[in-house]
Amino acid sequence: MVELIGDERLDYLLGENLKIIQSPSVFSFSLDAVLLANFVSVPMKKGNLVDLCSGNGVIPLFLSLRTKGTILGVEIQERLYNMATRSVAYNQLEERVQMIHDDIKEIPPVIGYEKYDVVTCNPPYFQTDSLQERNLNEHYAIARHEILCTLEDTIRIASQLAKQGGKVAFVHRPGRLLDIITLMRLYRIEPKRVQFVYPKKGKDANILLIEGIKDGKPDLKILPPLFVYNTKNEYTEEMGYILNGNK
Amino acid sequence: MVELIGDERLDYLLGENLKIIQSPSVFSFSLDAVLLANFVSVPMKKGNLVDLCSGNGVIPLFLSLRTKGTILGVEIQERLYNMATRSVAYNQLEERVQMIHDDIKEIPPVIGYEKYDVVTCNPPYFQTDSLQERNLNEHYAIARHEILCTLEDTIRIASQLAKQGGKVAFVHRPGRLLDIITLMRLYRIEPKRVQFVYPKKGKDANILLIEGIKDGKPDLKILPPLFVYNTKNEYTEEMGYILNGNK
Repeated sequence: MVELIGDERLDYLLGENLKIIQSPSVFSFSLDAVLLANFVSVPMKKGNLVDLCSGNGVIPLFLSLRTKGTILGVEIQERLYNMATRSVAYNQLEERVQMIHDDIKEIPPVIGYEKYDVVTCNPPYFQTDSLQERNLNEHYAIARHEILCTLEDTIRIASQLAKQGGKVAFVHRPGRLLDIITLMRLYRIEPKRVQFVYPKKGKDANILLIEGIKDGKPDLKILPPLFVYNTKNEYTEEMGYILNGNK
Repeated sequence: MVELIGDERLDYLLGENLKIIQSPSVFSFSLDAVLLANFVSVPMKKGNLVDLCSGNGVIPLFLSLRTKGTILGVEIQERLYNMATRSVAYNQLEERVQMIHDDIKEIPPVIGYEKYDVVTCNPPYFQTDSLQERNLNEHYAIARHEILCTLEDTIRIASQLAKQGGKVAFVHRPGRLLDIITLMRLYRIEPKRVQFVYPKKGKDANILLIEGIKDGKPDLKILPPLFVYNTKNEYTEEMGYILNGNK
């Protein structure tokens, strides 16, 4: 049993493999987070993983199916942290997945520097100067806009957490590619794998997946493109596999 | 009639639209050059275009079908410059296409600073420290290795030639994406359009096409991916259009 608050729902994640608490008025996970959790390279049998800006915990939950290692999720919004914690408990993952309610900028001394094999982050995407343009819902606004942390914060902190040779992976908008690459190199994360996600054939990419290695050697690979929808506006076969956890 | 020297051949370019002089022992144009000439944004009716590291003139020849503007091609190797000049004459393009035999590093004061609407370059790709690793054929070695000019040289010169708002486009290997982007920004060319070319589905990209605007505003688009071969190892439909000039 799980306690659901307000308009929360218990939704399936990855076919029927997991369940996750969501709320239309507070937070629902995005395709972007699922794509990142599927994209990042993880050690299967053990290791320390940490997910920054975890929201309702979708990435830690997804990763729990890909690794037997331990996974931390850091989320600054108490309401979302609380949803994530209940989802972890519902899925009986407390031994391997732990949520932390904190600001990512404060977290390295708390959870340890250069200890992590994998750091993931689906950060707020939008640089918004004007309050006007922001999402009016505070929970969504914080999750989507660079209000409480900037892209540079997430990359700097990720670098502080990753061990030498550790993997650091982000999902973002393709328009920020240049900023991400510049910041990754500034903070000693060498970009190694990039994948662009296209809504469908003939359209520009709308999602960027990027993974680097702390103190890695330069050698960038551009992976095969991923298409989300086919010409009939159904999920492509590949996308279906990712969403249903059949991969 | 055209004079052919040694093992030179007169090959078709873009279906039967043009002919180009090639030589297996000296220089044959690559798919990369054709893709760049097809990719770059050009003004249709007029304008000044310049192609750096022109080889046997494939990009100026190809561009002559896309624009009524004037096109310069700069090539440092006299033997290739000579082939290109004869191809221009054979196609009766002397009024709009002119080849220049010079080092690109010397060219801005000769042809003028910040005068060009479009600058293209298919530069030597390989950073080679050891003479051992170089192509033993001198013509191919100079065309393929950063012997007489580096990537930074080509980007710096391209920026000196481009007018404000002018387009600068390169083709290179995806592994150099980070270097290209960093250098473009250093020389005030803001990357705006990127396209990755994949040999076939499921393979990593092996060609990078990138276009920037001199003093442009940041706004990068990742164009739809281009596949060269289909699963039967034939050219894809899209590739066939590009190669046959039916676009």
